[in-house]
Amino acid sequence: MNYRDIREACCEANLALPQTGLVDLTFGNVSVLDADAGVFAIKPSGVEYDALTPADMVIVDLDGAIVEGSLRPSSDTPTHRRLFQAFADAGVRSVVHTHSRNAVAFAQAGQDLPCLGTTHADHFDGPVPCTRWMRPEEIATDYEWNTGEVIVECFAQRKLSAANVPAVFVRGHGPFAWGERADKAVAYAQALEICADMALKTAALQPGMQSIPDALLRKHFDRKHGKNAYYGQG
Amino acid sequence: MNYRDIREACCEANLALPQTGLVDLTFGNVSVLDADAGVFAIKPSGVEYDALTPADMVIVDLDGAIVEGSLRPSSDTPTHRRLFQAFADAGVRSVVHTHSRNAVAFAQAGQDLPCLGTTHADHFDGPVPCTRWMRPEEIATDYEWNTGEVIVECFAQRKLSAANVPAVFVRGHGPFAWGERADKAVAYAQALEICADMALKTAALQPGMQSIPDALLRKHFDRKHGKNAYYGQG
Amino acid sequence: MNYRDIREACCEANLALPQTGLVDLTFGNVSVLDADAGVFAIKPSGVEYDALTPADMVIVDLDGAIVEGSLRPSSDTPTHRRLFQAFADAGVRSVVHTHSRNAVAFAQAGQDLPCLGTTHADHFDGPVPCTRWMRPEEIATDYEWNTGEVIVECFAQRKLSAANVPAVFVRGHGPFAWGERADKAVAYAQALEICADMALKTAALQPGMQSIPDALLRKHFDRKHGKNAYYGQG
Amino acid sequence: MNYRDIREACCEANLALPQTGLVDLTFGNVSVLDADAGVFAIKPSGVEYDALTPADMVIVDLDGAIVEGSLRPSSDTPTHRRLFQAFADAGVRSVVHTHSRNAVAFAQAGQDLPCLGTTHADHFDGPVPCTRWMRPEEIATDYEWNTGEVIVECFAQRKLSAANVPAVFVRGHGPFAWGERADKAVAYAQALEICADMALKTAALQPGMQSIPDALLRKHFDRKHGKNAYYGQG
Repeated sequence: MNYRDIREACCEANLALPQTGLVDLTFGNVSVLDADAGVFAIKPSGVEYDALTPADMVIVDLDGAIVEGSLRPSSDTPTHRRLFQAFADAGVRSVVHTHSRNAVAFAQAGQDLPCLGTTHADHFDGPVPCTRWMRPEEIATDYEWNTGEVIVECFAQRKLSAANVPAVFVRGHGPFAWGERADKAVAYAQALEICADMALKTAALQPGMQSIPDALLRKHFDRKHGKNAYYGQG
Repeated sequence: MNYRDIREACCEANLALPQTGLVDLTFGNVSVLDADAGVFAIKPSGVEYDALTPADMVIVDLDGAIVEGSLRPSSDTPTHRRLFQAFADAGVRSVVHTHSRNAVAFAQAGQDLPCLGTTHADHFDGPVPCTRWMRPEEIATDYEWNTGEVIVECFAQRKLSAANVPAVFVRGHGPFAWGERADKAVAYAQALEICADMALKTAALQPGMQSIPDALLRKHFDRKHGKNAYYGQG
Repeated sequence: MNYRDIREACCEANLALPQTGLVDLTFGNVSVLDADAGVFAIKPSGVEYDALTPADMVIVDLDGAIVEGSLRPSSDTPTHRRLFQAFADAGVRSVVHTHSRNAVAFAQAGQDLPCLGTTHADHFDGPVPCTRWMRPEEIATDYEWNTGEVIVECFAQRKLSAANVPAVFVRGHGPFAWGERADKAVAYAQALEICADMALKTAALQPGMQSIPDALLRKHFDRKHGKNAYYGQG
Repeated sequence: MNYRDIREACCEANLALPQTGLVDLTFGNVSVLDADAGVFAIKPSGVEYDALTPADMVIVDLDGAIVEGSLRPSSDTPTHRRLFQAFADAGVRSVVHTHSRNAVAFAQAGQDLPCLGTTHADHFDGPVPCTRWMRPEEIATDYEWNTGEVIVECFAQRKLSAANVPAVFVRGHGPFAWGERADKAVAYAQALEICADMALKTAALQPGMQSIPDALLRKHFDRKHGKNAYYGQG
């Protein structure tokens, strides 16, 4: 069995999804990139989580060819592949896709998640964006690849850094999150779901979502992620 | 013990209901049809879930006669029977009834659940309908049979396929879901509850529920359920 | 140890409260009446649930005297006592008090819970009422006894039967429920919490809560509780 | 290992946070003061909860010097220190900080939590306040210390007693709670989260939050916390 490291990290992260409550039924998947080898491990399609082993992970290269694996990879594989192509330079080594319920509400409402508090600012350097609708021709052909395309387009048009805003809502669909390791990508997916929950509750108290002052956003993001970060045991 | 297969599938699916969180107290039941034998297994009425065994399942024929079983079948048995009569040709072999809370909200509000996102489109080919109110005379006589009747009428009037829209809300009551196997029927009941939760949250962000474009609905439904489905290991 | 039956039923029902999610921290209590002996068992005040044993239950008579027990009884004991005095003739043998969150919302909003669906009608024969505010002089003296008084007054003024509507909201406080056995009283407290949750969600979809037609309420209540009930194994 | 008592109480209380559901990921921390020694134990920064032992707790004095500990203390340490300085005279021996979701909604909406019912009055003698926004210069320098400052300022300006109102919302951030022991501080953090949940649900039923009459607030607060308290086994 080759690519043992990414197989194990990928399997563990996929198993974490139902444990964190992010995923119901089989609605989610995680991939992990070996950037040097130019391949990534991804969950097989439509398999129950409790049965997954590292050997079940499918190894796919960045051109989309299956390198190792007897199972069919997740149908979302081309989306993951497109994101690795575009975001690997920003340090992205793992992508998580879920249909977690609060995040899906933002995707279905077609709304960005503004930075309403420090929980958000601890993870995301500004609003988490929602993509535009995909066009009929983008849906008809290479749908999953084009799902990645609209994400990449969204980040380019808004001049967002995938390193600093490690998540997105795909309109009418749901969230993708990513990170420099599989456990971090899962943690960003969790943070997104939590911040979306907090935002729904905040909006119930106070219509019209008010972002926090920029100084507070900068402080919280930078104390965890900036050059002079002092959070954690770093 | 005859009809062991449907007894076991029925018992297992009934036990799955409280585990999935779909059912509180004793508010739910599952039936499983043996189409060749023309009989179905169903949960006994008002029995605690943790005590259920396959031998407790009651075997009922499509005319409503008890074929095997010492316990009284679920009071909802005539509804299940009516649905098997009408929908067996569409491949339905299991019916699930719950009072899951988000789905009940749609039944109580008398609203269809529109297709607001791809989670919905992965399971239901368009809106999940809500029936009309039952009339006093339908309630007074053969109430449970007539509950099935209003479902069948609703699908006929709206020209819906029970195979493609495997769930309904009975107005003022709650959801029924179905499928070609017991585990699939339970999964549709779960998917309905999840989509109803997502819809409630979406509506909190954006009043007036906006359905996804038809191309996106078609893509997601067909990639799982269409002729050229490519989701899962099938 | 005397009164073993009511001690055990009372202890078991108190332990059920945190398991059902009805009770956070130590916010709840259950009592069980031995009508022949004219005494009831009740939870001691402010004790952690995980440490409770039948021997810890305090035995109190209907005049409020402690018959057996080294611990102080729940501070809500006079409320339970007042309810047993008034409702024992209606068959009430157990009273449950919780601060379950959805039910508390109705108590805090000062609103009755209308019968919005069959889940409600399966348990409560019409709206669950909310009492009036207690007056300053009722609060200043014999507060807990007077809490029972406003419940009894509410049922008398509205001509409600404690047997058919086994729950109430005390305004600004929370729910009480009761039944002919401890497990049934707990089940009514659960049903109330569930129906309140469903009502909150229904109201989010459709402002202005619409009760179900009376024929449907009658059908569901009577098929479980009426003379010709046919639900359960009867 | 010195300061064993506060290390153990601090570790146990930190471990309680994820068990109570108050804390997701690593978003929370508890400190415990030894007032005689003038030092407190606090969680190390950014460490997973399941790995914490009493030996990992960091011992810090009231001037901010690390007295014992090889790990970096929580980045929120100066906030805890400021609160101990200001509130130790009110009997505060433990401070809890969480990002619990309902409480964060009030912080993000910049709203006080009014006393809507007796659950609130059992714990808090009036509204739980929300601080003002921190100013850019307070954020730029000594941010965490100044977070404590705005809490202390809020209590001074509103003439609130830290003993009677053992919690606060920091605007745009989240809740802090405290108490005379670590388990009590955690219980107040839980009570705050529960009351915030109840308030969100009450507001959904009845826009404009109505506080309970003062007599009812006094009764409930005083029967648990007043001179003549009669709740519990005290």
